[in-house]
Amino acid sequence: MMERMSTDDAATKLDAADPLAAFAERFHPMHDDVIYLDGNSLGRPPLDVQAAVDNLTHREWPHDLIRGWDRWINLPGDVGDLLARTVLGARPGETLVADSTSVNLYKLAAAALAAAPAERRVLVTDDDNFPTDRYILQGIAEAAGGRLRLIHTDIDAGVTVDAVADAVGPDTALVCLSHVAYRSGALADMAAVTDIVQRAGALMLWDLCHSVGVVDVDLTGCNVDLAVGCSYKYLNAGPGAPAFLYVRSDLQERLRQPIWGWFSQTDQFAMDAEYRPQAGIGRFAVGTPPVMGLVAVEAAVRLIGEAGIDAIRDKSRLMVHHATRLAERHLVPLGFELASPLDPQRRGGHLTLRHERAWQISQAMRDAAVIPDYREPQRIRLGFAPLYNSYADIETAVDRMVDIVARGRHLDYPAEATGVT
Amino acid sequence: MMERMSTDDAATKLDAADPLAAFAERFHPMHDDVIYLDGNSLGRPPLDVQAAVDNLTHREWPHDLIRGWDRWINLPGDVGDLLARTVLGARPGETLVADSTSVNLYKLAAAALAAAPAERRVLVTDDDNFPTDRYILQGIAEAAGGRLRLIHTDIDAGVTVDAVADAVGPDTALVCLSHVAYRSGALADMAAVTDIVQRAGALMLWDLCHSVGVVDVDLTGCNVDLAVGCSYKYLNAGPGAPAFLYVRSDLQERLRQPIWGWFSQTDQFAMDAEYRPQAGIGRFAVGTPPVMGLVAVEAAVRLIGEAGIDAIRDKSRLMVHHATRLAERHLVPLGFELASPLDPQRRGGHLTLRHERAWQISQAMRDAAVIPDYREPQRIRLGFAPLYNSYADIETAVDRMVDIVARGRHLDYPAEATGVT
Repeated sequence: MMERMSTDDAATKLDAADPLAAFAERFHPMHDDVIYLDGNSLGRPPLDVQAAVDNLTHREWPHDLIRGWDRWINLPGDVGDLLARTVLGARPGETLVADSTSVNLYKLAAAALAAAPAERRVLVTDDDNFPTDRYILQGIAEAAGGRLRLIHTDIDAGVTVDAVADAVGPDTALVCLSHVAYRSGALADMAAVTDIVQRAGALMLWDLCHSVGVVDVDLTGCNVDLAVGCSYKYLNAGPGAPAFLYVRSDLQERLRQPIWGWFSQTDQFAMDAEYRPQAGIGRFAVGTPPVMGLVAVEAAVRLIGEAGIDAIRDKSRLMVHHATRLAERHLVPLGFELASPLDPQRRGGHLTLRHERAWQISQAMRDAAVIPDYREPQRIRLGFAPLYNSYADIETAVDRMVDIVARGRHLDYPAEATGVT
Repeated sequence: MMERMSTDDAATKLDAADPLAAFAERFHPMHDDVIYLDGNSLGRPPLDVQAAVDNLTHREWPHDLIRGWDRWINLPGDVGDLLARTVLGARPGETLVADSTSVNLYKLAAAALAAAPAERRVLVTDDDNFPTDRYILQGIAEAAGGRLRLIHTDIDAGVTVDAVADAVGPDTALVCLSHVAYRSGALADMAAVTDIVQRAGALMLWDLCHSVGVVDVDLTGCNVDLAVGCSYKYLNAGPGAPAFLYVRSDLQERLRQPIWGWFSQTDQFAMDAEYRPQAGIGRFAVGTPPVMGLVAVEAAVRLIGEAGIDAIRDKSRLMVHHATRLAERHLVPLGFELASPLDPQRRGGHLTLRHERAWQISQAMRDAAVIPDYREPQRIRLGFAPLYNSYADIETAVDRMVDIVARGRHLDYPAEATGVT
């Protein structure tokens, strides 16, 4: 191990005062003292999630067999309600855990366009939104005679309220934006943006992938229309665990999603001839629910609930602040630039740093037992998971980055990004 | 335990000669000697599937973390190829394990309709097809200016080749049928039906949910265009494990599915502005793959491969034959009617029996430690899984059904079907 290069012992003090410090023990231990700063892409496994999957695989499935469905069939709505009250600030009956984020986005955006009056054919997003959001909307617009309008966005600053106001009008059916920008971590003003969009007569769909579980979300307070998000980042439910969707209750009857699967049917086991979508949030379900993934999400969200999203957000803010301070002091002199907003109110749980050799540095960091996330162009994302990362993790990571760049050790790595990054 | 009421020892002989008998030990043991005849709805857990999920949850996820994606990202195609060569008779690069059956059906049917010439707007299915198939097609037709045509089908005999020939014509874009009918177990003539549909200029989409893993399927030999199916019935991959889709290679470039998720994008991590679907089967992917479910499917299919689909089909035929013989002898005199085709070439892996008190009987059977499947109207499905069911299971199940009905013990149960059946 290297010596600490930082001159203060701020991290030690912060860790000693951390009310969430004990939660690190609720996760499967890291091997070889690796520091994991990529929980914004794939969270680490909580012991409770492992136990929940074990229980499903070794007890419920083999013992209950087909009878397990008496409980499992309610999981999409039950885990949705748990998620709603634990981290989304939504009411019961508005959230469903199902499918992937992309499929859910498709269902809700297509439903919104189909329900819009004939003169509202425009779907709005920003040109830096996560690719799947842009592509999905592009596909819907093309298939349904709509049009996609892209808000041009500074990739380090995120979407502004003014830019949204300029982009919406009487032709707009739906606006879809990310709550936290995947690259920069910029946090959008959910309340103000939602209000502007609704005043323009359109529906607002938030992609919560990069905020859920680390940023406090208040869907009811912001009167949000629609939302989607994943469960494998700060929620820690495992690779490819099912996603969620939210539809405000008063909108549910107005919207009809395009994939008329039997799990959305009224009295599904009657096997009726005609499709009659359920009255509630169930009408946004499609096929057989992924039970193994659902029990993982259930246990993962319970753990978040134990810690409390407010305490998580508080620690997250402090971690990003601490990392920003260290980066300004030690990394900027080495050619890094901050590529996240500086305003603590306008950023999520990760800090992004630009460097022209970011790809090489990220590879060298992995070999120095620090796992960051790389994103084009030339950006390293440092994701801080309040439940298992410590302030010492941040300090050590920055020390190692300094060591790598100061000694030019990253120059030994291939310059071109490859693989899953 | 009750005495055996059958007068011969055929089951004992058949079990002694069963080349697959040893595979029962590859499954998690049943509790309390329960006889499980519902593998056509939810298969029992193979030990290898439990081990694969354990490995993912306790080793790959915690140890590899984000680096696991280097392997996981290839699972949809890799497990698809494994499925293709093990049970589908398809070539590499034509199968993907992803999403639910309903979502996959939506993607392929919508793509087929979108690619059809303007004069071909009709989607054909049968009025007894599994509800999700009918509803999904109904939704696509409604959204895309198409029309759904239903072939009227005898619910115990299944769709006939002649009926399909009558239903297709120059207005037809796509025909979608189940290979094995979910209620009766009737097995469609895949080769003849596919040929008729293609001669009429339409595409053929087979739903393999109730045949995959128990009936030999030859997608290449039958020149099938499109197929979908699930993995939690005879494949035993667990409740809600991911489904699969198949698109014949020469069709892939012609078809573009409607859900433009980032996993279908060329060079997905470049985060490009424009959607450019991949060239191969990957263009039918959507969102982040459900890794936990994928490793379950992988292990489940390997087990099927060890046994060999031909040996499985042989045993399945013999089991259904044996059960039919016992039912004719012992159950028909008690008011049961056979509600499956009698021709061994025209039926799949389960036997369906009609009785006016079938719901009550199915509940009494559960309490007599035999788990069958109930389906409206008034039908008990007995599903025989060649990998873990024995001929003695069949004999005992029939004995207990006789005991229940002869003594009127089912009359103690509520007459109305409830819950997940």
